[in-house]
Amino acid sequence: MENEKVKIGVTDTMFARGDMGSLAEKTIQKSKYSKKVEVLRYTVPGFKDLAVACKKLIEEQECEIVIACGMGGKADIDYMCAHEAAQGIMQVQLMTNKHVIEVFVFENESKGNDKVLAKIMRNRTVKHTLNALDLVFNPKALQKKAGTGQRQGFSNEKTVKL
Amino acid sequence: MENEKVKIGVTDTMFARGDMGSLAEKTIQKSKYSKKVEVLRYTVPGFKDLAVACKKLIEEQECEIVIACGMGGKADIDYMCAHEAAQGIMQVQLMTNKHVIEVFVFENESKGNDKVLAKIMRNRTVKHTLNALDLVFNPKALQKKAGTGQRQGFSNEKTVKL
Amino acid sequence: MENEKVKIGVTDTMFARGDMGSLAEKTIQKSKYSKKVEVLRYTVPGFKDLAVACKKLIEEQECEIVIACGMGGKADIDYMCAHEAAQGIMQVQLMTNKHVIEVFVFENESKGNDKVLAKIMRNRTVKHTLNALDLVFNPKALQKKAGTGQRQGFSNEKTVKL
Amino acid sequence: MENEKVKIGVTDTMFARGDMGSLAEKTIQKSKYSKKVEVLRYTVPGFKDLAVACKKLIEEQECEIVIACGMGGKADIDYMCAHEAAQGIMQVQLMTNKHVIEVFVFENESKGNDKVLAKIMRNRTVKHTLNALDLVFNPKALQKKAGTGQRQGFSNEKTVKL
Amino acid sequence: MENEKVKIGVTDTMFARGDMGSLAEKTIQKSKYSKKVEVLRYTVPGFKDLAVACKKLIEEQECEIVIACGMGGKADIDYMCAHEAAQGIMQVQLMTNKHVIEVFVFENESKGNDKVLAKIMRNRTVKHTLNALDLVFNPKALQKKAGTGQRQGFSNEKTVKL
Repeated sequence: MENEKVKIGVTDTMFARGDMGSLAEKTIQKSKYSKKVEVLRYTVPGFKDLAVACKKLIEEQECEIVIACGMGGKADIDYMCAHEAAQGIMQVQLMTNKHVIEVFVFENESKGNDKVLAKIMRNRTVKHTLNALDLVFNPKALQKKAGTGQRQGFSNEKTVKL
Repeated sequence: MENEKVKIGVTDTMFARGDMGSLAEKTIQKSKYSKKVEVLRYTVPGFKDLAVACKKLIEEQECEIVIACGMGGKADIDYMCAHEAAQGIMQVQLMTNKHVIEVFVFENESKGNDKVLAKIMRNRTVKHTLNALDLVFNPKALQKKAGTGQRQGFSNEKTVKL
Repeated sequence: MENEKVKIGVTDTMFARGDMGSLAEKTIQKSKYSKKVEVLRYTVPGFKDLAVACKKLIEEQECEIVIACGMGGKADIDYMCAHEAAQGIMQVQLMTNKHVIEVFVFENESKGNDKVLAKIMRNRTVKHTLNALDLVFNPKALQKKAGTGQRQGFSNEKTVKL
Repeated sequence: MENEKVKIGVTDTMFARGDMGSLAEKTIQKSKYSKKVEVLRYTVPGFKDLAVACKKLIEEQECEIVIACGMGGKADIDYMCAHEAAQGIMQVQLMTNKHVIEVFVFENESKGNDKVLAKIMRNRTVKHTLNALDLVFNPKALQKKAGTGQRQGFSNEKTVKL
Repeated sequence: MENEKVKIGVTDTMFARGDMGSLAEKTIQKSKYSKKVEVLRYTVPGFKDLAVACKKLIEEQECEIVIACGMGGKADIDYMCAHEAAQGIMQVQLMTNKHVIEVFVFENESKGNDKVLAKIMRNRTVKHTLNALDLVFNPKALQKKAGTGQRQGFSNEKTVKL
């Protein structure tokens, strides 16, 4: 039945220099959970507009989780804006008791190399989309990776034994 | 019928060095949606007064969306104040489930050249006002520009393929 | 009738090096609105205590607006405290849908000259108090000054045409 | 009657290098209001645990006011933690409409001299505890000191005439 | 009776380079309170996902307290993310009136030495887990250590007499 599918939101921006939102959608459609999921897409101008879009998807469209894709420039003010965007996304989660998985990429991470930038955007978007699916359908899969230095956007880190 | 028009709020400040609020109003009146819209203007002293003005327009005047125009000086304290103003605007959105489109310009963006400053203020105000109209009347138009490096105030950025 | 007067709150601190609160009170009493207004004064130790005082004046004493006077020292930690105080004042406004006009002065603004400091404190307190009165009694007066580079504490800035 | 006493909360930390909480308690007991007050003490690990302790004292134990004692180290991260702790304390006040008097000391204030550190801790704890008592029992006493450059932890500042 | 046990939440991340969550669990199981406690584990991708996980454990699973384990990298952006994570955890506490004990470790604390890093992670996780147990079962034990310069992750500091 159509309306028994789990709704997953994907919010993204016109400002980002790569189409992370469509990649997140595709990642869900190609995953083993694709049949169980309905994706709701919501594009906004910039990343400070993401938080309320996520909240509307959860409260007005009944999304179970939202993947919020955004990209920050390299100026100081861009980091401040990212901080404000992230604080908003944090509040959305606490107001709704739902996860919003933040997929933010900063231009500086690629040191000016657009191929590297694209790679980071792809890697981070795909991995975080799969994390979101696990949070909904298979939370034990996350626990198996607890404290293992997972990274989204780069290679994983080495671990220490406690 | 008058009261079936969509109400759009425009908040702005006495502090700004250019009349962005009137430009936002004019942009709405010249747009193809002008007949469907009633504009409510609310001018406050400085940009830290904007958030509550936006909230009052939404909650007391039933605005569907608000365009919040402000301008920051170049001192460190001005950036801190802008951050506080932006956090307030973020909260307004989450408390009301309505978008508030923030149109903030900083003096430093023009490197002391007032012609450049005026150009940035014009470009950003007009583009963001049109974004606000699309969010209300034509959200699919935003999705078509997803991840395309759109900029308000400057030229658009080049994109990367994911 | 006494209880038909509009209540205006004035909050201030023991920490400030000049009595901005009394000046705000006097400015209201000397204004053309003095007969319509009842002033409620609330002095707290430092500016981080202002926010809850403002909220109590609004919620427990039915103030229509509050003028919050504070002063910050020159150390980094003082700016952080001012930021926390300002965030609190922002939240008060959003929780009550009432304006709180923040009149904050920083010691560094006067570059160590106490005459300059006093002048800034006077100028900012008086102008912001008049702004607060306009917000309550004559909001159109603010709109006439929209985007005109008004400053509180210093001379106004020059404007650019949009 | 025991249950007519005003309840005053004192929260403090294991992390602080001096027992400010006990000093606050003693200061209340030695004050002229001691007979009217019941002190509730609540010790937590570090200063980021203070806010919820203050809120519980107010909401679950009916404290009229809380004195929150904490101490910050000299690393950048310590200042960030203090900021988070202070933001929490701000929120507690706005959620409860009660004052929480923050008594925070930073190691750097003493420039490495532990005698100076102890003196600042004592001075600030005692003065702020007396301020808290005045807020509850004699608010006019605070107004008399409005704008007089009062300091807690150091000597008072000189004032300027407005 | 199983359902009379006190529920204690342990949240942790895949991002951390050591399994602090399992260590927190073990510390509870080896403590004198083990029989009285049921541990609920919740692993999320990164530390910005912790806050909502803590809130869900408290509100949906009735945890009395939560231990939130996270680890931050050494870049500036990592500190900003930690700040956002910590602000979220602060809000959870104020929204629920329950303590969430934050166990955050930063890579820079070990100056690149992984043995030191592991030691800090162990020390901080174990001590904070015991603090959490004391907050629930024996709050007076914390008060005995009030103002004694306790440290989690390093040796305790020397104290000053007030």
